[in-house]
Amino acid sequence: MLLHNLLPGLSIDCVIFGFHQNELRVLLLKMKQSERWSLPGGFIRLDRDVDEEAAHILHTRTGLDNIFLKQFHLFGKQNRSNTSHIEPLIEQNVLPASSFQWFDQRFATIGYYALVEYASVTQPIADTTSDCIAWCPLPDIPSLILDHHQIIEHARVALKEELNFRPVGRNLLPDEFTMPELQSLYETILETSLDRRNFRRKILSLGILKDTGKKRLGAANKAPSLYTFDEVKYAEAVEKGFKSGFL
Amino acid sequence: MLLHNLLPGLSIDCVIFGFHQNELRVLLLKMKQSERWSLPGGFIRLDRDVDEEAAHILHTRTGLDNIFLKQFHLFGKQNRSNTSHIEPLIEQNVLPASSFQWFDQRFATIGYYALVEYASVTQPIADTTSDCIAWCPLPDIPSLILDHHQIIEHARVALKEELNFRPVGRNLLPDEFTMPELQSLYETILETSLDRRNFRRKILSLGILKDTGKKRLGAANKAPSLYTFDEVKYAEAVEKGFKSGFL
Repeated sequence: MLLHNLLPGLSIDCVIFGFHQNELRVLLLKMKQSERWSLPGGFIRLDRDVDEEAAHILHTRTGLDNIFLKQFHLFGKQNRSNTSHIEPLIEQNVLPASSFQWFDQRFATIGYYALVEYASVTQPIADTTSDCIAWCPLPDIPSLILDHHQIIEHARVALKEELNFRPVGRNLLPDEFTMPELQSLYETILETSLDRRNFRRKILSLGILKDTGKKRLGAANKAPSLYTFDEVKYAEAVEKGFKSGFL
Repeated sequence: MLLHNLLPGLSIDCVIFGFHQNELRVLLLKMKQSERWSLPGGFIRLDRDVDEEAAHILHTRTGLDNIFLKQFHLFGKQNRSNTSHIEPLIEQNVLPASSFQWFDQRFATIGYYALVEYASVTQPIADTTSDCIAWCPLPDIPSLILDHHQIIEHARVALKEELNFRPVGRNLLPDEFTMPELQSLYETILETSLDRRNFRRKILSLGILKDTGKKRLGAANKAPSLYTFDEVKYAEAVEKGFKSGFL
């Protein structure tokens, strides 16, 4: 990390959501020399756009490219950053002593969230200041550094709102999925249960699904149909949003 | 401006929308020594939260407090800032030569938009680097510095989306207004015409309006009813959003 090569005053934190067994999980790093965890994040190289750097962080931790990644909020409280999580790393020579001055600045951080298919990230990669990286279920988030709890909560609310506007699911589900699997994803994000018939009617009316004509075999009940997202219409809806509300 | 007292690398730009004669207008400053204009903005004092600083900028330019002010996007392209609009100001001693180094940094900027009642801002106040400040109709925006055109366009799209989610209008209309006046505001923001009956039904169903029992007198046609926003329900809807989409 060449610190003179970085934009001062601003950092990036990524809330990477995965969906597994009807649960949303978040990718977190366990800090070395500490019981606390952190969001994947970093600083911005002077020769990279902020969005580019966020995509780079996501790629470095997950190996994934071309993932839906959305800026959702700048966290700018004047006292939000401090060096308490960095000091043990400097004491143990994980970070050089010369980096203290860098971390001792005030940082605002820009939050991004990403949606990834859990199964596509089999070997997430920790960074040099972390012991390990793991998917943590949202109800069981461990103790986090700085305001990272608040950043996750904010991302969650932003994702809920997004769901009413734009299609969500393409990166969270496998290519082919059943209507109950899709409903379960929506219920998990919205933290509520939805009526089966209304959900089906509503989601079909959006025109973003294609019936593959195939069935999921081996199910206990009647074999359910497998759907896939219509690539073109899905992309259009991400671009333009659903015509909801007054439009 | 004590430059050592500011957060480096990050600035604020505010898109302040006002509504007048069925037009959205934006408050802009004409730069000294230049034909170009800019958004009201500034840097962040180290002892202020970013949101606080944005409210301070809004207050300084308009005299208004407690205005709906919303972060909508961080503009972080690595080449978005430059000193071309600052150099003539330094040459003419509007800014001290020592400030060049500050402006020569790369800045990301966080965009906020505000909605204000046009009539409440009778005397907007220019800053020291500007000749004047004026409300410019959206279709006739003059030439702007840096990426300020793009910032306005982005704010406009964010405002449109917001309209489908949360009530908008309280700060853009006078206390009492007619249904056609409210519809006209929505049509202007959405850049489309809406069916009169559908609009009326939809907006009343949200439960945020109160009929004052009064009529607007002196109108050419039948005197239209005057409405006002229900403070409590309006605030609730701003907080929670409308239950649209899947909820």
